[in-house]
Parts: sequence; C-alpha cells; structure tokens
Amino acid sequence: MAEYKAPLRDMQFVMNELLDYPAHYQSLPGCEDATQDVVSAILEESAKFCENVLAPLNRVGDEEGCKWDDGVVTTPTGFKEAYQQYVEAGWPSMTADVNYGGQGLPGSLGSILSEMKGCANWSWGMYPGLSHGAKNTLEEHGNEEQKQTYLTKLIDGSWTGTMCLTEPHCGTDLGMLRTKAEPNADGSYAVSGTKIFISAGEHDMAENIVHIVLARLPDAPAGTKGISLFIVPKMNLNENGEVADRNGVHCGSIEHKMGIHGNATCVMNFDNAKGYLIGEPNKGLMAMFTFMNTARLGTAIQGLAHAEVGYQKSLEYARERLQMRSLSGVKNPEGPADPIIVHPDVRRMLLTQKAFAEGGRMMIYYGAQLVDTMQHSEDEDERKAADDMLSFITPIAKAFLTETGFEAANLGLQCFGGHGFISEWGMEQNVRDCRISMLYEGTTGIQALDLLGRKVLGSGGELLKGYTKMVHKFCQANADVEGLQEFVAPLNEVNKELGELTMHIGGKAMENADEVGAASVDYLMYSGYAMLGYFWALAAKKAQETLAEGTTDEAFYKAKISTARFYFERILPRTNSLAITIKAGLGNLMELDEEHFAF
Amino acid sequence: MAEYKAPLRDMQFVMNELLDYPAHYQSLPGCEDATQDVVSAILEESAKFCENVLAPLNRVGDEEGCKWDDGVVTTPTGFKEAYQQYVEAGWPSMTADVNYGGQGLPGSLGSILSEMKGCANWSWGMYPGLSHGAKNTLEEHGNEEQKQTYLTKLIDGSWTGTMCLTEPHCGTDLGMLRTKAEPNADGSYAVSGTKIFISAGEHDMAENIVHIVLARLPDAPAGTKGISLFIVPKMNLNENGEVADRNGVHCGSIEHKMGIHGNATCVMNFDNAKGYLIGEPNKGLMAMFTFMNTARLGTAIQGLAHAEVGYQKSLEYARERLQMRSLSGVKNPEGPADPIIVHPDVRRMLLTQKAFAEGGRMMIYYGAQLVDTMQHSEDEDERKAADDMLSFITPIAKAFLTETGFEAANLGLQCFGGHGFISEWGMEQNVRDCRISMLYEGTTGIQALDLLGRKVLGSGGELLKGYTKMVHKFCQANADVEGLQEFVAPLNEVNKELGELTMHIGGKAMENADEVGAASVDYLMYSGYAMLGYFWALAAKKAQETLAEGTTDEAFYKAKISTARFYFERILPRTNSLAITIKAGLGNLMELDEEHFAF
Repeated sequence: MAEYKAPLRDMQFVMNELLDYPAHYQSLPGCEDATQDVVSAILEESAKFCENVLAPLNRVGDEEGCKWDDGVVTTPTGFKEAYQQYVEAGWPSMTADVNYGGQGLPGSLGSILSEMKGCANWSWGMYPGLSHGAKNTLEEHGNEEQKQTYLTKLIDGSWTGTMCLTEPHCGTDLGMLRTKAEPNADGSYAVSGTKIFISAGEHDMAENIVHIVLARLPDAPAGTKGISLFIVPKMNLNENGEVADRNGVHCGSIEHKMGIHGNATCVMNFDNAKGYLIGEPNKGLMAMFTFMNTARLGTAIQGLAHAEVGYQKSLEYARERLQMRSLSGVKNPEGPADPIIVHPDVRRMLLTQKAFAEGGRMMIYYGAQLVDTMQHSEDEDERKAADDMLSFITPIAKAFLTETGFEAANLGLQCFGGHGFISEWGMEQNVRDCRISMLYEGTTGIQALDLLGRKVLGSGGELLKGYTKMVHKFCQANADVEGLQEFVAPLNEVNKELGELTMHIGGKAMENADEVGAASVDYLMYSGYAMLGYFWALAAKKAQETLAEGTTDEAFYKAKISTARFYFERILPRTNSLAITIKAGLGNLMELDEEHFAF
Repeated sequence: MAEYKAPLRDMQFVMNELLDYPAHYQSLPGCEDATQDVVSAILEESAKFCENVLAPLNRVGDEEGCKWDDGVVTTPTGFKEAYQQYVEAGWPSMTADVNYGGQGLPGSLGSILSEMKGCANWSWGMYPGLSHGAKNTLEEHGNEEQKQTYLTKLIDGSWTGTMCLTEPHCGTDLGMLRTKAEPNADGSYAVSGTKIFISAGEHDMAENIVHIVLARLPDAPAGTKGISLFIVPKMNLNENGEVADRNGVHCGSIEHKMGIHGNATCVMNFDNAKGYLIGEPNKGLMAMFTFMNTARLGTAIQGLAHAEVGYQKSLEYARERLQMRSLSGVKNPEGPADPIIVHPDVRRMLLTQKAFAEGGRMMIYYGAQLVDTMQHSEDEDERKAADDMLSFITPIAKAFLTETGFEAANLGLQCFGGHGFISEWGMEQNVRDCRISMLYEGTTGIQALDLLGRKVLGSGGELLKGYTKMVHKFCQANADVEGLQEFVAPLNEVNKELGELTMHIGGKAMENADEVGAASVDYLMYSGYAMLGYFWALAAKKAQETLAEGTTDEAFYKAKISTARFYFERILPRTNSLAITIKAGLGNLMELDEEHFAF
C-alpha cells in the first residue's frame, strides 16, 4: 500500500479549471514567471519528493519520535537528511522575496506544496512550515539589517524559525504573558521567561534557529498592549553574521503527546537571551497577527491533508478487503466475499472523506489565491476586497476544515474495522496527528469567536456580505441552467439563511454579548457547510460545462458531479440542525450554576 | 487532579429513583438478596477499589503497555497485583451462578460495577470482562462436567477467559473462518488455526486461560452453518482438574495499537491444541450470539465510561483554568482572568459530555434491568417482552453510546486547549482508549444493519413498536403535565417520526435491499438521539416530582432539569438533519463506479 500519491489530476482541476490560476498568475505583477508549464513542473517535482522521500519517513517519525538529551533534540531517523535534500533542491526559497535570495514565485504555490508535504508527513512539514511563518514576519516587520542577517538564512534554508507565543499559564489569553525583555547597553535586549508548545523549537536539522518571541519591555502597559516582538537566535552571530557562541535559550524538555511525534514540541527557557526588537515597542501582537493568519491558513491545510490521506488509504482497503456479500446480490462471485466498497455504508464513509478532501482543496486554493492578490495586486480596491474575503474565510477554513478533517480521518480508520486501531496500517496515526489541528493556532472555539464576533458582527455584517453577495450572484447567474438546480437551489437557501441567522444572533447579542459565544461554533460550522456547498456547486458547473464541450476525460467530470450530489444530499443537510441550535440561545448553557455541574 | 471519582449520587438516582431497582430486585425470584443496603454497600466498596487501586494504574498501563517475549506476555506494573486483590475480595463471583460458587447477585449489578471499573481503567477491566463473557457462554451452553471444571475456576477468578472469533481474513464475516477442529480418539478435538485481536489472550495475571474458540469440524457445511464452539484451555488439566502441562496454544505476538495499551491484544496460534466441544456441532455461532449480546452491552458501557471520565476531568479543568474574560463582564475580578467555565462555548462542551454520560447511564441501567428480567422472571410473557426490548436497544446502546462517547471524549480533550494533546493530562489517552469501542464487537455500521435490517425490518416492525408504544404511552400520560411540555412535545414528535422513517425505508428496501445499508447508520443515530430524549424526559419528570414533593437536595434535581433542557434544545435537534439524510436514498452512494473514486 502506497503511503501517499499526490492527487495531481485533482489539484490541476482546481487550479487550472476551477479557479483559473494561469490567468490569475498572469494578471499579478511579479507572478508572471509562474506559467502553467513552470507550475506543472514544480508540482511534479514536489510530488516526487513528497511521495518518495517524506512519506516513507512518516511512520518512522511516529514510532521513533524526537529524543531529548540535556537540551539536545534529535529528530527521527532520516528527517535531517530529508531536510538537507529539501534545502539543496531550493524549496525553502521558492516563494520568498527575490531581494533576499528568494525565487519570488507566488505564495499560493507554497500553500499547494504544503498540502503535499503535509499529506506525506505532517510532522516533518512543520519544520519548514514554522520557518515560513518566521520568514513572513521578518519580511513584513523586520528592518533591513535583520532581513540581511536572518531572513536570507531562513530563505536559503540553512536556518529554521519558530514562533514563541504560549506560556504555561496563557495560550489563548496572550495578554497575560510574562516573558521579559530588558534593554542591553548595545541596543539588544535580554529576554527571560519560559515558553511552551514551541514546535520545532530545538532540533538537529539546521545550524541555527531563529526564534520569534513575544515578550514585555520594562514598564510596558499591562495586557495585550504591552507586548513586543523579538528575534532571539539560538546561536549568537559574529560580526560577519556567522554562527558563533550559544545564546541563552535552551530546550528544557519536549512534550509527550498524542501525535505529530516526529515534530519536537519544546519547552524553551530564555535566560537573559540576547534578542532584537522587531518593529515598534508594544506593537508586537499586531505584528504577530500577520504571522497568525498565515499560520491559520497553514493549519487549515492540515485538515485537508488528513482527509486526503485517510481517503486514499481507506479507498484502497475498501477495494481489496473481502467481507460479506452485498445485500442486493453477489458482486464478486469468484471470490469468497465481496470487496467492502460494494456496501452502501462503506461508500458513505468514503464519499464523506472525498467530499471533505476535494472540497477543502477548493476552499484552500481559493484562499491562497486571495493571499496572492493581497500581496501582488496594484489595485487597492482589489487588495482590500481580497483582504476582506480572506478575513472572513480564514477562521472558517481553519476550524471547519480541521473539524471535518478529523471526522474524515476517523471515517478512514473506521473503514478498516478493527485493523484501523492497529498501528501498522497508519490509520490511527492519521487520526492522532490530525487531532492537534483543532487546538493549535487557536482552537475551534476561538476561531468561531473570531468569525462571528470579530469579523462578522465586528464589521457590522460587511465581511459576511462580501461573501454572501458572491454566492448570490452565482446562484442568480445559474438559476435557470439545466442540470444545476439540485445544487443552486439549496445553495441559495443556505446562503439566505446564513444572513438571517446572523441578523438573529446580532439582535440577541445586543442584549447579552455572551449570545455570541453561545452560537459561535454552530455558526462557524454552518458557514463551513454552506461555503463548501458553494465550492461543490462551482465544481459541478465546471464539470457539466466541460462534459457539454466534450472531453476525453468524461469519468473524471462525472465523478465531480456525483460527489457534488452526494455532498448536497448527505452533508449539506447538517445545516438544518445547526440552524436550530444556533437559535437555541444562551439560557440552556448558563442556567446551571458552576458548582452544580456535578454532585 | 483525581483520576476518577465514582458518581455515586447519580448512579443511585438512576437505580433507586428513576428505574426503581429496589422494587425490581424484590420482584425477581433469586434477586431478593440485593436489598438497597446490600447494593449500597457493594457500590461503595467497588468505588473504593476502582478509585484507589485501578484508577492510579490507568496511565501506567498506557505508558508501559504489555510486553511480549517469546510467547510470554507481561502486563503493566501493578495490574497483576490489582487482579489478585480483586479476586481476594470475591468480585469475580458476585453475579455468578450459586451452584458453581457464585454469589447469585443480579447481573445488572455487574454492569454497574463494570462502569466503575471501565471509568477507572478500561484496559484492566477487560481482563475480568472477557472472563465474564466466557462464564456466560459456559453457564448457558456448557455441560455439567465443563461447568465443574472450567466455570468454577472462572467464577472464583483463579482463571480468566477469552473469546477467539476473528481471523486475519475475517472479522465481521465469520462464515469465512478456517480454524479447524479434528476429533481425537478420546472425544476431545485437535484445534488448529490462527486467531487475531484476542483481548486478554495471554497474560501473567492467572494460572490458566480458558479460550472459547470458534472452529470448523471436518466436513462441516460451508459458511456460518458449519461453525462449532470449543473450550481450549491454555494449560491442560490433570485428572483432578488441576493445571498440568501446556496445551498447543501460544501467543505469537501482541498488537501495537492506538489505545488500551494495558490490555494485551494477541495473535493466538492454535497448533493441534486440545479442545472440547461446547453444545451441538455446527451450532457454535448461535451459541456465541448469547456471548455477543453481553459483550455488546459491555462495550456500550465503554462509551459511557469515556464520556464520564472526560467530563470529570474537563469540568475540574474548566473551573480552575483562568483564561480570557467573560464577554458579558468580568466574573473573577480578583484573578488575572476568568475561569473558562464562564464561557458559553466551554459550557456547551461540558454539558454535551454531561448529557451523554448521564443519559448513557440511564440507557444502560435500563438495558441491564431487562437482562435481569430475561434471566430471572417466572413470567414467560415478561421474559419475552424484556428480550424483545433488549434486542432493539442493544445495537443502539452499543453504537450510539460509543459514537457519542467518542464525541464526548474529544470535547473533554478540547476543553483543555493545547494541553489536551499532551499525555500528562490523560485526556488524549481517554480519546485513544475510546476509539476502539466503535470497532470491536461489531462496528457502528454492523450495529446499524443489525438494528434496521435484522431487528426492526426483520421483525416486521414489531421490535420497534414495543419501544415506540412505551414512549407514546409516556407522552400521553404526561401530555398535560405543567412544566414537562418542553420535553414531552418534541419527544412525541421524534417518536412519531421514527415510525414514519421506518415505513419509508421499509418501502424502499422492498425494491432494493441496499436501501437498508444506505440509511442504516443515520437511522441508528436518529434512534439513539430519540431514545436518549426519552430517558432525559423521564429524568426531568422524576426531578420535577421530587422538587414538588420537597427535598433537601434541590440543586441536584434542578441540575437534572437544566441538563434535560440542554439536551432537548441543543442535542435532540440533530434528528432534523438525520431525518433528511435517512431519506436521501441509495442513488448518491452507488452512482459512482468503483474505479472512479479517484484519478
């Protein structure tokens, strides 16, 4: 059984046919080099690397995990060598700024390659993934010297990066953080404190690690308005920018955790470590937000990745495993039993995974396209529109795609029956690795508050309207197209209902702000199902058009229409229950006194 | 943080107040010894053992796992000693037949103690749990000599038992099994073959293991009609029934798996092992069914157990963890932040767990009561009615309570944020241990086919009617009771709709039997939500009556009503979506050709 095969046909459908990436790239200044030929060649090379180098290390990473010995962290067998290959092939620089050694290809291409890396080996992919976040922060907020010194090294891959936010007593609530930064005479800072859950915080893959650290200056205001952002390198540099002596930052231990064993989750102790301020004092959290949005979209990809991997493996198993006869008559008379893919309930589990994986791909590639536009468009209105749409989509993509990714990963395991629980098949690792995605970079609950409270109600409904108008336009344009009514009609209904539900909660929230929290997760899930419906309707339309035009690839397009039908008949109806529970209100959650939850 | 505290108050509410166990026991011949005082004392003793001995070994079991060395399996530190204590206290004999050394207490009491053992340490509890299944099989189908030889030893706990069904190529489809049993000259059989997934198949806790093995006699008919049942002891016995030499059965390896590490999941190789036929030749699968029903109810308890444990720990964490301020104003002005239990979405996660744990308790204790009636009632009609109701309830309890148990376990983890993913809190173990419950003893899909195909449609709707009539009667009797309408009215609706949905599928299934499989899992989940609604309505009624009568324990009963309200407003509406997807039909599942699932 292959560990992973990049679904290039589907990726190209979404990029080239559904979202017209070729025209998108040609329309953006600085992205013209990303011609369809170049992109195809990159996808194929990446697929080879992910399938042949990363995927075989996925189980090794899970079984060996990372080893900590007196502050030194050793990654699983093969991880370091794979990283070396990755660097030598130039992958770290692909989408980075040409002024600092990057190749300047559009960021969306990076997201698409992240999907492949993530499917093949999520734990491994997190090492370069964290570097990517650090790169973005320095590109956006670093000064020229910092860029020359650190960014160039992150871009050529010789160093990696981290984000150091969480402390033992604060994760979501960063206003409580205590790590201190005291000014040194030379303009640098002495950073002291303890950070936890630092992914890739220490390892043996690169000669230096660039920590991006949130800390407080002396006399900084309390809360979130007193947080500044610092670069703290693992190794201090000499005057030529080369690695010199060890800085005062050490890995105190690594966590034992449910999954992603191949990635080192570190406790990092900063003890008068030399740090360098990024951007303005006390503006660190705002600067970090750039970073967080990228990270959140990156985590959305994790949901897609585990859905895709679970789907690939369970599909193969369902075709091969012989067990019981079809209730409607023997399908495999030659064999002792029928392959389990004949059973409707097995197909339900497979199609659910397929609908989430392929649907998630559409949602993420669309989001990635918006990032390109924000970064490259010369039209301010266009940039603003993309930014608004991305703000709306990010929490949905992060929370909804990881929740459905976890459902899909569990259904993939379920297709294996008891064998799914056994490690050798890899299905249980897929579930364990996936579980973190609903927690880090803001839990599902936090994303839901971000969506409903900050984005939708916080914009007076504007951010939502940008999206619902787009869907409405699509529904109107296709209102009379034959063959699309089964998709367009229900899509139009949920799109309208989403607006009504928003009004309803908005009204109640004026009386009690807690109404937002009472509705938020169900609201986010509703939005996710509705949005995935939009993408599946788009896919059905494109497939129908292509079939009408004539194609040698009929089966592919028919499968798209079948999967869209499955989605609309089997998955989208979940919005019916959510519409009720969204309106259920605060009372049933708050009437129980805290001390009466148990006796 | 305590690992587990037996919720004695709630257990007693369900037993004594809701289901009137005292009268139930007094009405059944042979159960009169189970007076309320005796039962209370037993519950308290069991709670002590589970809280103080088993719970502290739960994490040890996960971390150490079982060790295999050349056929010898060593259980985790402390497991053997705990089993010794368990045996010395006389627990294994509690509900067993007095003629073979048992104490003859009603079986329901065993189920209730299983809940405590399962909450404290599911992996450990499986060792005596498997013995219990073997005991039941021998009590029901063994001859007098077999009972004297093996049953007495299982009852006094000096030996343990297993059930050996699954083979590498067949789990669900037992008709395909290949293990052979050839007659020996002395009337015994030579059993040869390989069994996998044998829980407690080999260990160091007892001097002998009684394997109950499914195998084929020479020239047995093909398929399920050619399967016989055998006793195959690990150690042969001398003429005094004492352990003598080793029989030809060995543990070839143990599985590496997602959870329940403390329980040894064994590959068992039978190589001309001496076995003894139980019951009639070729009637083994039917005999095993007795066994399977007990096992399935036992697995339903696992769903409840992981919901309860997750709830207890996440409630404690939610009360202590300070993070963010309530959106409706500061609740803990003294502290740096509010405890997270102030946030509506955290309460949603806690109340969901609570509703499933306490609701599952009602459902299981009711099922256990039916088992008592089946076993002890002298009235044949009463026995038949209990048997019918139990047949209907078993697949729902097994699949619905494990699915919702897994949801609850994941919500428990989710309340911890990123800390939930870290092993030391125990929340991720709770999720991993829980995951097997939806797989073994028949997957959710298999339970759903059993419910809809075999039980409901197979009885021409009779088994369903027995249940819906009971609910209908309750709804009618309480149609005008003030304060109960918010529960009775929606319950009445889902109860009616359940009948309508059944008719709908029944009609379609006459055209194509695969329609059953297309609807079955959603149908089972619908039935589960509806049935849990019935129990929550019962609880609300009982609480309201008690409050009206006057009680010193007002808060307890008010909490019951609040939780019922939460259930009806937030959970039961899931039936709205299920009603739609149940009717979605077969088309969207079958139209995609097997080879077009991926390209």
